[in-house]
Amino acid sequence: MTARTKVKQALSEGKPGSECLVKGWVRSVRTGKGVCFIQLNDGSSLAGLQVVAEPDLANFNEVCALGTGAAIAVTGLLQESPAAGQALELKAARVEVVGGADESYPMQKKRHSFEFLRTIAHLRLRSNTFGAVFRVRSSLAQEVHRFFAERGFLYVHTPIITANDCEGAGELFRVTTLDLAKPPLVNGSVDFSQDFFSRATGLTVSGQLEGELFAQAFSDIYTFGPTFRAENSNTARHAAEFWMIEPEMAFADLNDDADLAESFLKRLCSHALENCAEDMQFFNTQIDKGLIERIQAVANASFARMEYGEAIERLKKAPVSFQFPVEWGLDLQSEHERYLTEQVVGGPVFILNYPKEIKAFYMRQNDDGKTVAAMDLLVPKVGEIIGGSQREERLDRLTARMQETGIDPESLSWYLDSRRWGTTPHAGFGLGFERLIMYLTGMENIRDVIPFPRTPRHAEF
Amino acid sequence: MTARTKVKQALSEGKPGSECLVKGWVRSVRTGKGVCFIQLNDGSSLAGLQVVAEPDLANFNEVCALGTGAAIAVTGLLQESPAAGQALELKAARVEVVGGADESYPMQKKRHSFEFLRTIAHLRLRSNTFGAVFRVRSSLAQEVHRFFAERGFLYVHTPIITANDCEGAGELFRVTTLDLAKPPLVNGSVDFSQDFFSRATGLTVSGQLEGELFAQAFSDIYTFGPTFRAENSNTARHAAEFWMIEPEMAFADLNDDADLAESFLKRLCSHALENCAEDMQFFNTQIDKGLIERIQAVANASFARMEYGEAIERLKKAPVSFQFPVEWGLDLQSEHERYLTEQVVGGPVFILNYPKEIKAFYMRQNDDGKTVAAMDLLVPKVGEIIGGSQREERLDRLTARMQETGIDPESLSWYLDSRRWGTTPHAGFGLGFERLIMYLTGMENIRDVIPFPRTPRHAEF
Repeated sequence: MTARTKVKQALSEGKPGSECLVKGWVRSVRTGKGVCFIQLNDGSSLAGLQVVAEPDLANFNEVCALGTGAAIAVTGLLQESPAAGQALELKAARVEVVGGADESYPMQKKRHSFEFLRTIAHLRLRSNTFGAVFRVRSSLAQEVHRFFAERGFLYVHTPIITANDCEGAGELFRVTTLDLAKPPLVNGSVDFSQDFFSRATGLTVSGQLEGELFAQAFSDIYTFGPTFRAENSNTARHAAEFWMIEPEMAFADLNDDADLAESFLKRLCSHALENCAEDMQFFNTQIDKGLIERIQAVANASFARMEYGEAIERLKKAPVSFQFPVEWGLDLQSEHERYLTEQVVGGPVFILNYPKEIKAFYMRQNDDGKTVAAMDLLVPKVGEIIGGSQREERLDRLTARMQETGIDPESLSWYLDSRRWGTTPHAGFGLGFERLIMYLTGMENIRDVIPFPRTPRHAEF
Repeated sequence: MTARTKVKQALSEGKPGSECLVKGWVRSVRTGKGVCFIQLNDGSSLAGLQVVAEPDLANFNEVCALGTGAAIAVTGLLQESPAAGQALELKAARVEVVGGADESYPMQKKRHSFEFLRTIAHLRLRSNTFGAVFRVRSSLAQEVHRFFAERGFLYVHTPIITANDCEGAGELFRVTTLDLAKPPLVNGSVDFSQDFFSRATGLTVSGQLEGELFAQAFSDIYTFGPTFRAENSNTARHAAEFWMIEPEMAFADLNDDADLAESFLKRLCSHALENCAEDMQFFNTQIDKGLIERIQAVANASFARMEYGEAIERLKKAPVSFQFPVEWGLDLQSEHERYLTEQVVGGPVFILNYPKEIKAFYMRQNDDGKTVAAMDLLVPKVGEIIGGSQREERLDRLTARMQETGIDPESLSWYLDSRRWGTTPHAGFGLGFERLIMYLTGMENIRDVIPFPRTPRHAEF
């Protein structure tokens, strides 16, 4: 019995005249001159294998009547294909219909809108576009692990359910086993001591704080897991559930952090171009014309570094009018970020050392008393893609900043412990994995790079 | 300026006489004959590097007074060590105290109980045992991705927040943004249409159903992500949050499934032995005497396969008395599983084709009308470590079984769609990652192989 060959392998390694067994799903059937041509796809590659069925086939009529979406297994001989765009085709000796599909199958050959395809997210996987998206997503995720493993970074599974920040924060999803119809109350407030964890808990928004604890024991670590935002915003760039990559390095400063971010992003760009070439070519043709050129430029660039203060000066001098104000002390908006990376630098640029008021409490306070050691990496077409910082490693400074910003140091005493004993300068960054996939594929809606996206009012499948 | 060398690299590749800069945390300080010896660990390996400080060092007194837990950076020359158990040591030319630690540091050199260390899970990372546990955990997680990537399996991020099974199921954590103190009610029931997702949602217990959808497009896929159980059970083997690996293959039957599970487990055993040798040696010495021999035996074994019916017969004939009854139709208890793998087979064994009444609705119904194509892989010392099945691919059979077991087919219509168009025989399994780590390290409490474990009444850090 012949073993199954994946289509990708048959197309790349198959020899004319060799026997081959392929299994997959029918993308299209077409007959001409008494011969029947089937496009067979098994998800291993964008390209399908053309199966040629001739009248001498035992179930020729059944095969000609196959519907789009049917599952079949075909044995035959590979042969050179006279058709354009494919070197090989499979002359069928035997076609087994494994699972039929009638005309009610929603993924007929015609083009569907992405909006419609979101309503059948369980079937859109069998289309060219979403096949390519999820192959690239998988390949990049595996490459993320390879990148860090090669550098001796420890992979950490930080907790998903957390009690941090769960008293009040508006963007948190609550996690509970209390009976919501009859919650236990004490003086009108929910008695969380009766909840599963004996306290209020929610879904994590970041693994960074726990990641820092690991860095203080293993030097170099990273997380790669799901994070959550209960933001009621229906934009093309926001999802309630998404995956984040957060490396953290002990004995490292902001420069080391930028070095790592630069190597990381360039590596992922190169990987997509080299290892997902067929899918990237598809995106470049069908989704986003300049994609490959843009990704190639990032892969080869030397990333610029610019102080926030200089960025503000450059923006003030810009011969364009921005929608949002530009002033030292204000955060950069997407229009400003894109101007900096596209017009001023003409390539990726790190903006360094932001005003402390617009950044998180844990970022390292610079000697100027005004800025913190934060960095954002901006890239052409999207603006910010990575955000990071050197962390405040000095116990007194960190405690003072928490008090200034209204965070009770007692509530994060375990976090402060990492500054109490054996503290080190350390730094890390966060990369939203979906934003990366959008960037690398040109897909413009985050709902189209997540298998089953979660957004306000949507949790299907 | 010399670049930092990790301790692991210094010990394995360092040359006597070469200059070296190491950074890490002090595990112990000891003085003798006017010389000061520091055990320095940076998390890259179990073994630390011995730093030798002599009185000619500028800050010799400061160095001798260093506390356990302090962070230091040391420059010096590697030299052959006269001490037993280490080939190299570092003669310090310069010691920078990066972050001090006083005697209040909870991880002093004496042995602590695992129970105590759980209360300082943010610091236990800096101990030998937990250093080894989390290095092995990371290395195995990365190897899981390598294993599947090599075989062309697509990595899928299935949803964490789900609306499946959220009406009533007791073991689900509810996810909500409703005000728990004042939930919106309609006729005494919670009005989930006002919740974030306009419906009742909870945390996933498995990515399998969504994984099956992906297998019907990409042939071979796997998930590796967090899953949840709101079970109020305080055992050494249960956690509320844990990571699962779930591969799924289209065009595959129960035998293919067992073949994959066997290759997978053997590969992970070999990986731990070969790539985590130092840590495994530690576990073998300190935690579980027969560990390496047992893991080696699994790595080299040819796994047996036995029908459930035969297993019941063997157990009935067993010259031992079990606590739980043995009868065709009853599930196997841990004592039965261990007897089968340890006494009957003397090695790993798949038990195949269980009575349908004790297995899930989605498992493929066998022709005998009594059993389903389920498999459990049993290994010596723990019993079941992997559970899987061939899935019911026939729409009518699956629908009928759902109705028999009280599941509304309408609620999973998207799942049934995968059987409606292009259905294929397919199979997969699930492996609890923490159970695997416990098995490979000999650690006996699941709380000790999870960075920050979530169990009833516990969600610290």
